[in-house]
Amino acid sequence: MFSQNTLLIFFAIFFLHVSTITFASDPDPVQDFCIPHQKLLGSMNASHHHGTPSILPCKNSSKATATDFVFSSTKAAGNFSEDGIAVISASLANFPGLNTLGMSFARADIEVGGINPPHFHPRATELVHVVEGKVYIGFVDSSNRVFARVLEQGEVMVLPRGLVHFMMNVGDKIATIFGSFNSQNPGMQKIPSAVFGSGIDEELLQKAFGLDSKQIGSMRRKFDPNSK
Amino acid sequence: MFSQNTLLIFFAIFFLHVSTITFASDPDPVQDFCIPHQKLLGSMNASHHHGTPSILPCKNSSKATATDFVFSSTKAAGNFSEDGIAVISASLANFPGLNTLGMSFARADIEVGGINPPHFHPRATELVHVVEGKVYIGFVDSSNRVFARVLEQGEVMVLPRGLVHFMMNVGDKIATIFGSFNSQNPGMQKIPSAVFGSGIDEELLQKAFGLDSKQIGSMRRKFDPNSK
Amino acid sequence: MFSQNTLLIFFAIFFLHVSTITFASDPDPVQDFCIPHQKLLGSMNASHHHGTPSILPCKNSSKATATDFVFSSTKAAGNFSEDGIAVISASLANFPGLNTLGMSFARADIEVGGINPPHFHPRATELVHVVEGKVYIGFVDSSNRVFARVLEQGEVMVLPRGLVHFMMNVGDKIATIFGSFNSQNPGMQKIPSAVFGSGIDEELLQKAFGLDSKQIGSMRRKFDPNSK
Amino acid sequence: MFSQNTLLIFFAIFFLHVSTITFASDPDPVQDFCIPHQKLLGSMNASHHHGTPSILPCKNSSKATATDFVFSSTKAAGNFSEDGIAVISASLANFPGLNTLGMSFARADIEVGGINPPHFHPRATELVHVVEGKVYIGFVDSSNRVFARVLEQGEVMVLPRGLVHFMMNVGDKIATIFGSFNSQNPGMQKIPSAVFGSGIDEELLQKAFGLDSKQIGSMRRKFDPNSK
Amino acid sequence: MFSQNTLLIFFAIFFLHVSTITFASDPDPVQDFCIPHQKLLGSMNASHHHGTPSILPCKNSSKATATDFVFSSTKAAGNFSEDGIAVISASLANFPGLNTLGMSFARADIEVGGINPPHFHPRATELVHVVEGKVYIGFVDSSNRVFARVLEQGEVMVLPRGLVHFMMNVGDKIATIFGSFNSQNPGMQKIPSAVFGSGIDEELLQKAFGLDSKQIGSMRRKFDPNSK
Amino acid sequence: MFSQNTLLIFFAIFFLHVSTITFASDPDPVQDFCIPHQKLLGSMNASHHHGTPSILPCKNSSKATATDFVFSSTKAAGNFSEDGIAVISASLANFPGLNTLGMSFARADIEVGGINPPHFHPRATELVHVVEGKVYIGFVDSSNRVFARVLEQGEVMVLPRGLVHFMMNVGDKIATIFGSFNSQNPGMQKIPSAVFGSGIDEELLQKAFGLDSKQIGSMRRKFDPNSK
Repeated sequence: MFSQNTLLIFFAIFFLHVSTITFASDPDPVQDFCIPHQKLLGSMNASHHHGTPSILPCKNSSKATATDFVFSSTKAAGNFSEDGIAVISASLANFPGLNTLGMSFARADIEVGGINPPHFHPRATELVHVVEGKVYIGFVDSSNRVFARVLEQGEVMVLPRGLVHFMMNVGDKIATIFGSFNSQNPGMQKIPSAVFGSGIDEELLQKAFGLDSKQIGSMRRKFDPNSK
Repeated sequence: MFSQNTLLIFFAIFFLHVSTITFASDPDPVQDFCIPHQKLLGSMNASHHHGTPSILPCKNSSKATATDFVFSSTKAAGNFSEDGIAVISASLANFPGLNTLGMSFARADIEVGGINPPHFHPRATELVHVVEGKVYIGFVDSSNRVFARVLEQGEVMVLPRGLVHFMMNVGDKIATIFGSFNSQNPGMQKIPSAVFGSGIDEELLQKAFGLDSKQIGSMRRKFDPNSK
Repeated sequence: MFSQNTLLIFFAIFFLHVSTITFASDPDPVQDFCIPHQKLLGSMNASHHHGTPSILPCKNSSKATATDFVFSSTKAAGNFSEDGIAVISASLANFPGLNTLGMSFARADIEVGGINPPHFHPRATELVHVVEGKVYIGFVDSSNRVFARVLEQGEVMVLPRGLVHFMMNVGDKIATIFGSFNSQNPGMQKIPSAVFGSGIDEELLQKAFGLDSKQIGSMRRKFDPNSK
Repeated sequence: MFSQNTLLIFFAIFFLHVSTITFASDPDPVQDFCIPHQKLLGSMNASHHHGTPSILPCKNSSKATATDFVFSSTKAAGNFSEDGIAVISASLANFPGLNTLGMSFARADIEVGGINPPHFHPRATELVHVVEGKVYIGFVDSSNRVFARVLEQGEVMVLPRGLVHFMMNVGDKIATIFGSFNSQNPGMQKIPSAVFGSGIDEELLQKAFGLDSKQIGSMRRKFDPNSK
Repeated sequence: MFSQNTLLIFFAIFFLHVSTITFASDPDPVQDFCIPHQKLLGSMNASHHHGTPSILPCKNSSKATATDFVFSSTKAAGNFSEDGIAVISASLANFPGLNTLGMSFARADIEVGGINPPHFHPRATELVHVVEGKVYIGFVDSSNRVFARVLEQGEVMVLPRGLVHFMMNVGDKIATIFGSFNSQNPGMQKIPSAVFGSGIDEELLQKAFGLDSKQIGSMRRKFDPNSK
Repeated sequence: MFSQNTLLIFFAIFFLHVSTITFASDPDPVQDFCIPHQKLLGSMNASHHHGTPSILPCKNSSKATATDFVFSSTKAAGNFSEDGIAVISASLANFPGLNTLGMSFARADIEVGGINPPHFHPRATELVHVVEGKVYIGFVDSSNRVFARVLEQGEVMVLPRGLVHFMMNVGDKIATIFGSFNSQNPGMQKIPSAVFGSGIDEELLQKAFGLDSKQIGSMRRKFDPNSK
């Protein structure tokens, strides 16, 4: 009646237009695994630049292969940003096998002096494993105390869920870290851009940070892509 | 190939006929938010008078607006029932922005002497904030003890999940309360109608409550819309 | 310094006076099992007639035995109540091995014509397995519809969490059922005694059920142990 | 525009090809119940021989009946396997009413001397109720201790989630047990076939079990359906 | 052997010294409620100025009273801070009845032009009910978009868990809001003080925000109580 | 009244004798973190060789330091077992900072040809990051299919919760892997010793694996420390 391709095109269009049925949770799975259908995922990625995960029709489990559970893009460093950091994140979009399994991860390479600015993950604790180099890593607790230390190769730091944390390469060569999360979509809010690059009312920002209009304007030009 | 409208009509029909894909849970969200597509939700509401929530295709997150997260129908009281209470409940059906966020709420206005009959919410704890007036509020625990008190403006009572509770306006003007729940669909069973208005076998009810056939019949006529 | 017995006596007294540290949840365990220390549990039972479960110091896991995981009191029927039902419930108090495992169960024997009056379990779905006999079993959903049927030996009915349900032996011999729950402490509110035997304000009850003062008084005498 | 049948056929084909949208969790339901549409479930079963549960469009709740919540196939024993055990499992595939309710169950009849080989359920604690007969039942904890005992009619054993367990009929007549689980899809890995019948690298198996090539080959012929 | 007072003193000392046994979770309760013993809670409060909740021995449930479930401090506004906001938060420390029930709440009064600076709650969604006045309320999502609106009396806004949000009184009289949370301890990180008042390495802050040493120093003096 | 040391000694003795209050769950934390008091943890470790985690009195949060959140023992390989594998696991016992944060991890070094025998973790998904070398890694699903592949440096494989998995170094130098888990105590059952080294009834094992008495005896001598 319909060929499989027609159906896939149909659903690709559907997901493109209506947007996706999003995940309700990160809880105990009730099946071994569930790998979303690649073609549908492809169209989702095209439309969802924010990487929102989705409940998508899954491949028949008998068509899953070992490769569905292996991620290889972490073999080499990614592209470095202005902050001197190159992050490769495994998420549902590029590693569908993670779907429903409650974990995700990222590789970050940091140039000498490069930083990972203050940010937090609303939905996950993070384990940071220093694969190579010397990194100053820390987090801030609810009473505004900083817990920070320089970690060396092989050491691991745990960053509690939802708390602001940050990193800086304080060694003399590129550092490589491996971060793992207990959510398939931990989420991320980078403080500088979330606060100064998002369009919060200027008067409110002035009062909140004790900055004047000129200073706020300068911060906005720096962090808001639309104001550049 | 298909216009967006054709697709929406198609899915509206689909959801109308086959009924909806229902929510599996009230757990941690794995995305910032997920607002169901309004047109589909509309057709769902038409068919689902019981307000069953559903996993529906969500709007592309880039099309969400601040208005999606604001509920305004609580600005004024609703229509009063025979019990002297007017309830406006925010649920997925009339406030799609709640979807996956784990909370919902209701405004209730109670006439002098009006009551909220014994009922319980199977899936949520309730916080009752007395916005105006003087209300007798209480709940019953598993050992049949009543915990009840008269609350005044500004006071808050917590009603543990799944326990029978009740209210009565004992002041001299209309009382207004704001109830919030830790589930997007707390559910509700009103004891009088669930027990006497639902069609449970009459002999069983007679034995359970020690009432005779005539008394049960009178209760049924009162609470069963079909027996009137 | 202290003998084990002194310590146990000390803690028994402690738990007797200060009441127990209660369980926070029914979630995924993080160890194989955790069996509370019997002597402490004993003192808890003495003081906690309501069967409230508790976080108690556990036996060293190397001292656990197979017997800790076996419950034998369900081999024979219990004592029948006025309603014609004999319930033996396995809970933390009499089967400590259930602790942290997320399940509990009960055997109920029902005399011919006997009933299990309308009640609900705030914290669990129930599976009812008819081991012997013929039982009318049903529940009421949130829209006050009854789902009821006569079940025979070997059949199973599922009763959704938090919804009012009831049973009656409609066969011609004693019926035996086995109920299992997905919580180690499902809780229970029996409608007749929770509503009419708990001391809810009389005026509120009159309004809620459309009964007069005499009728409410008669119900109270029937269900409130203190008003007898 | 489309008849209901056309839509059902369409979706049946869709689910057949693209495979199903799988469940994300076994958590608190947010509605009373959710019964998948039978016709779609039928096509799912045809394609999903592994019984993978799915998020499927549900029947309009007003069309649910009491029968949707009753399972009758446990009235008689199933077919006995080579191990001397006959298992009838209630799962989403044959008992859609379980959907979202967090429990499932199975009846097993065991011939004299028959066994239930070492296996575990990754996603559920199990309660084993001996309905008839005499059964040796046990489990192994994380420190490789066995907790095993012979249970008689009416006794119950609790098997903690995810731990290897086993049974053997040590009585002189067929034994019947009723197992209930706190997940709608507990999952199952039978050790002999998962390890020796699945195609794990032979060298690895030799080293792990200290067996030689001939012994491993013999085990494989026994447990791997493809090597026979 | 020991009087109750001796035991309480003993445990008060214990909790004072060793600090408290902290809560493991905000999940489904397994009992109706659990009210920590007041005297112990008192000593906890004395030592734990950060309001860390704790698993504490609970009162015998038969000694609980209706008053344990009512909070009255929200009847009037609190003390206004420099930002022009007065917050009264109900937490375990001042409202023990919330314990294990999965919710908490706060009343905030905001002066004309006063603000609630950008902050987030790591462990809860927030419902903001505007009881009186006119308030600009908004949050930022993971892609740095602001969702903000002016709310009037009776309106409600939902702020998704873990996302940065903020408020400002834009009306011409004091505004009163009531915020409820789906966690008994939602946590809070106020961006200005968490980032600039916590002692994060200065070089890192300079690079992250594009500010020079003097500007960072000025921010620190403003937000770090120790640098004043 | 009591010195802090006396109290610590007292509680150390208490935990030593009565065993520990065990964790109920791995759910959302309700505080930033909770670090068990070191001295008590020390005595726990002495008595609990199985590494059972515990709810222990925590350090006052103001005494926590950055070092509490850093684990350094993974800087170098551990001691190699007969299987040619050296595992260093971070758990509550040696890394108290993990407490309540929902994650744990392990470093494993594998000699050329060394193996990690078939095993599973009842309570966690595992992410395996190959830090160095070439490792054959795989898991078996519920339908006895193997998903296995050779991974090289920088690649990651995800192993679904509760499924049997295994590894073998197929490269020509020592391989190093870093495994992270989404539970603070994932648990572990190593198939060879859980099945053949635990004392399961011999007749049952013979029937389950199709082995004769002599073969079972030989396996037992190999895997049961008590039968050696």
